[in-house]
Amino acid sequence: MSNINLYQQWGITLDLALEAHELLRGATGQEIPGVKEDKENYPYATVTTITILSPEGAKIMQKPIGRYITIEAAELRIPDPESQRQLSDLLNQKLQPLLPKDDQSNLLLIGLGNWNATPDALGPRVISQCVITRHLYKYAPEALTPGMRSVCALTPGVLGITGIETAEIIRGVVEKIQPTAMIVIDALAAKSVDRIGSTIQIADTGISPGSGVGNQRIGINQETMGIPVIAIGIPTVVHAAIIIEEAILKLFQSMKMYEGLHPPIINEIINEVLAPFSGNLTVTPKEIDSMINNLAQLLAQGINQALHPNVNPSQFNMYLQ
Amino acid sequence: MSNINLYQQWGITLDLALEAHELLRGATGQEIPGVKEDKENYPYATVTTITILSPEGAKIMQKPIGRYITIEAAELRIPDPESQRQLSDLLNQKLQPLLPKDDQSNLLLIGLGNWNATPDALGPRVISQCVITRHLYKYAPEALTPGMRSVCALTPGVLGITGIETAEIIRGVVEKIQPTAMIVIDALAAKSVDRIGSTIQIADTGISPGSGVGNQRIGINQETMGIPVIAIGIPTVVHAAIIIEEAILKLFQSMKMYEGLHPPIINEIINEVLAPFSGNLTVTPKEIDSMINNLAQLLAQGINQALHPNVNPSQFNMYLQ
Amino acid sequence: MSNINLYQQWGITLDLALEAHELLRGATGQEIPGVKEDKENYPYATVTTITILSPEGAKIMQKPIGRYITIEAAELRIPDPESQRQLSDLLNQKLQPLLPKDDQSNLLLIGLGNWNATPDALGPRVISQCVITRHLYKYAPEALTPGMRSVCALTPGVLGITGIETAEIIRGVVEKIQPTAMIVIDALAAKSVDRIGSTIQIADTGISPGSGVGNQRIGINQETMGIPVIAIGIPTVVHAAIIIEEAILKLFQSMKMYEGLHPPIINEIINEVLAPFSGNLTVTPKEIDSMINNLAQLLAQGINQALHPNVNPSQFNMYLQ
Amino acid sequence: MSNINLYQQWGITLDLALEAHELLRGATGQEIPGVKEDKENYPYATVTTITILSPEGAKIMQKPIGRYITIEAAELRIPDPESQRQLSDLLNQKLQPLLPKDDQSNLLLIGLGNWNATPDALGPRVISQCVITRHLYKYAPEALTPGMRSVCALTPGVLGITGIETAEIIRGVVEKIQPTAMIVIDALAAKSVDRIGSTIQIADTGISPGSGVGNQRIGINQETMGIPVIAIGIPTVVHAAIIIEEAILKLFQSMKMYEGLHPPIINEIINEVLAPFSGNLTVTPKEIDSMINNLAQLLAQGINQALHPNVNPSQFNMYLQ
Repeated sequence: MSNINLYQQWGITLDLALEAHELLRGATGQEIPGVKEDKENYPYATVTTITILSPEGAKIMQKPIGRYITIEAAELRIPDPESQRQLSDLLNQKLQPLLPKDDQSNLLLIGLGNWNATPDALGPRVISQCVITRHLYKYAPEALTPGMRSVCALTPGVLGITGIETAEIIRGVVEKIQPTAMIVIDALAAKSVDRIGSTIQIADTGISPGSGVGNQRIGINQETMGIPVIAIGIPTVVHAAIIIEEAILKLFQSMKMYEGLHPPIINEIINEVLAPFSGNLTVTPKEIDSMINNLAQLLAQGINQALHPNVNPSQFNMYLQ
Repeated sequence: MSNINLYQQWGITLDLALEAHELLRGATGQEIPGVKEDKENYPYATVTTITILSPEGAKIMQKPIGRYITIEAAELRIPDPESQRQLSDLLNQKLQPLLPKDDQSNLLLIGLGNWNATPDALGPRVISQCVITRHLYKYAPEALTPGMRSVCALTPGVLGITGIETAEIIRGVVEKIQPTAMIVIDALAAKSVDRIGSTIQIADTGISPGSGVGNQRIGINQETMGIPVIAIGIPTVVHAAIIIEEAILKLFQSMKMYEGLHPPIINEIINEVLAPFSGNLTVTPKEIDSMINNLAQLLAQGINQALHPNVNPSQFNMYLQ
Repeated sequence: MSNINLYQQWGITLDLALEAHELLRGATGQEIPGVKEDKENYPYATVTTITILSPEGAKIMQKPIGRYITIEAAELRIPDPESQRQLSDLLNQKLQPLLPKDDQSNLLLIGLGNWNATPDALGPRVISQCVITRHLYKYAPEALTPGMRSVCALTPGVLGITGIETAEIIRGVVEKIQPTAMIVIDALAAKSVDRIGSTIQIADTGISPGSGVGNQRIGINQETMGIPVIAIGIPTVVHAAIIIEEAILKLFQSMKMYEGLHPPIINEIINEVLAPFSGNLTVTPKEIDSMINNLAQLLAQGINQALHPNVNPSQFNMYLQ
Repeated sequence: MSNINLYQQWGITLDLALEAHELLRGATGQEIPGVKEDKENYPYATVTTITILSPEGAKIMQKPIGRYITIEAAELRIPDPESQRQLSDLLNQKLQPLLPKDDQSNLLLIGLGNWNATPDALGPRVISQCVITRHLYKYAPEALTPGMRSVCALTPGVLGITGIETAEIIRGVVEKIQPTAMIVIDALAAKSVDRIGSTIQIADTGISPGSGVGNQRIGINQETMGIPVIAIGIPTVVHAAIIIEEAILKLFQSMKMYEGLHPPIINEIINEVLAPFSGNLTVTPKEIDSMINNLAQLLAQGINQALHPNVNPSQFNMYLQ
């Protein structure tokens, strides 16, 4: 129904490749050239890997060539210990193959986002639960558990508070400490509220300009950083303009009107209802604070396992602040 | 157009008496029996006082008998020092007459809300900038500036974190320390996004059950507390269900359809778009964190002036933590 | 060597009954009438139970009649998972017999202390990791795991910030919600730096006036609250005056001077060195922030197990914020 | 009496040049070659400028060649508005001449220290109250007040949490954004408790290795950063080993013993009393949290005035988060 370009007037990008692909394939499920989709089913989750193979596919999807692995599980929102364990194991399983093989390499973790704006706080909250070891390698190697990798981390804050683009801070640190690769954790915006807190996206293409709840201005990826960048994100918001559009389109559908069209009236109404904030309003669940705490813990568990695969997870707690 | 009862199915109350009154008066501007409205214009603001005079008015408005003073100013969102000063002076001017005349009385300030969920953090952030003196009266009166009143404060957290209703905590403290009156600060939900951060409501009826972003279960008012309770609130969110309803009604209006009716299709669409969260989704601006910081500072300035009217505001900073 | 009354001029009480008993018994190890001491050895810890049996013993010890259980373990400072597990099990084992037998009873947890002053933040940090269930009993019993007890919690802040004595807040809440018993967690002051972070004291006598890092003005105990109060504390500081006194006494001992005496010169020197802060200076380790995080986690684990003994600890995480 | 080298065995450096100079000059007040001292008296403060002029002076003082301006005022600890204003004006007056003349230049502010360890939180708390403008220059110049300089800021955390040396993070950012100069704010350790919270040191030599409460491993200065670095610090702690040493030396003095000597017994006693923490214990006032809040506000006011001298201070609030 909708065309992916329509979101651009609101400064909205579709962070989830899965949603972009769904949208473009439309009701007919047409194939998008240069884009491959594979699905795997697990007891607790569905894993969909979307691979953008060609510049043509990248242009249509408005996402760079690369792999986008999506773990979908409604159980992500329910902190039941057994499903949580299975889901962090699954994250570990999907993340590990993307990491440098050499376990002597140093990895840099980045928690993007604003600590003080709850829906945007996912990145920093994940980082606070990750096992950091680089300083131990340097100053106290006897304190390490055998098998641990060298990992360091940064939460660069946001441009409006520091006056410095996060990409500038990150690039500066990368040039100084020369990590082998980077994992960036960020809160995303989804197109549909049922994806909030129930979807994890792992992308080996890093962070594209305009993406995330914070709308990163400058990309954080192989091009800008010079090293592989893996992005891990979970949607915590939907843009308000999108849910109004979705509601109106559903109304048209139920009234059997305007099929296939997207009349200007929709934009006029969005503008009126959301004035004076327009594209700067987001929709988020009331329980977002506890939801993000659970998700941060799950992501951190999966990341710790993937970074230190030869270490018993019971040892991780000892290294946390 | 809409009927005030329609919000109830989503567990939504209209926190702003001004919005409830507008809605009920409808397009024709009909008078609501037992409800009086007065407007005053200031350079930076409009002040509307809605007085509910009779049980009939209370029933229609679904709000208790009492006074609801609304300060509306788009400048509330812009931290320009001159307008900020005029607006906190205006808050002081409207709040003072509601306070106990006896300046020997002790006042209790309550910051309702969850520190960790940004749109709900207004109450606690205001309290952290209020001048607290009750312990100085007791232990170090020489540290007081002459003219200061005895003021104490509490931020009772939320039921989901403490396991205790905030009203239970507050009532227990009120019975112990016997304040003469209470001021409760809370984040509100508005019906229209242009009221977010641009409207202050002062109500001498306290907090009604179901109100605020946190949906207080038990009221905090003269009935439950035994002392006068003044509620001060600013809207920081709009319920997602309401903006979808507003968009659809505007569509109907523009298409000259279904005037005066509210077809079931609207609720079906709201349910579909907001599943599985339904009534638990809120719309808030991206810059909510810095917006709430500015508003908290402005409210605290006005409250400090109203509580200690004979003290030069330059002295307040000395007492802040 | 020293007399317990000498600390009073600095406003210092000995929070640890173990230290008070050691001090009074002196080098000769004389028995203190009305005070019994029992020691148990465990692989990771020594547990000493001091029971004050009579008013005479209470007067000499300057502590109320009751039981003081001290767990001493240097491993408390090392977050090794195996010893941490054994130590939280030991805490559970010693705490459970002090709790009400009736598992239908409601327990209130209090985290005393100031979130923002790191050495005094132990209480609040413990509470944030405790399983709170009272609201689930009331509103969502199906969300409870069978065997869970009703538990609620409060972190009342400090007098200097709220203007309200913590005992007033707690008493008010106790009268409202009528818990069967209370557990209060607080940071303590020790006499010797090697007890910092290596000692847990469980006392069935609650919190005495003047105790803890925050020097509680009003006691929190059966007398003031009307219900049993169990106090759990870990020393995080030593008063600066005490370490100067200890150093000077060791000097005298090594120079074989002034044995058994406590000359006025000691107080003069303490006053000079600590001016202008005198009794308001504390000694604490640089790594106090991470130390308190580890200790808070260990205490919370032990408390959760003791409160919900029939629940598998793997279920607790689901209930944490 | 004491020799400056004696502190080194405890890993202690004297952060305040004023204290180092006093110590070296001893009771006789002998001149130190290559070191000049000038004193100015103000109503609320004494300003002492120590200039190290030669390599010989640098070697004896164990501080680099440069200027060390110390503002001493007991009123720094008392948040009286009039003296606070005069003291931030004085800071502005002494700081401005050290800044680049070109007001088109970009300045980088660094808040060293650990947010979560209260005595070490001064740097981050100051930064949070500084006016940041660099992003406005880039994206919204119309939002600037005429006369404002381009300022950005960073709080790099601590090695134990990030795994990255703060100097590495800062150097990386400096190379990327090329500021003209840097101001680093840090909490210091003093030799005497009466300097806690009553002394501001401004040094045009940046941060030397080993200095500050956090014991910076790598220096942050012109040599390591390639641009001028001005360090601003206030003592918030005294090392515990130092106060024991001071107490024992005073005892010897009063007993007319061991004049001019520093017997090994002192180190033995320090080791015994402070075991097992030895050099890692600090002495700090109980009210350190509110003290640091007041000092952070005062420092930020002075820094904002010095950075934007042509802007009315009433305009600053508009730019704060």
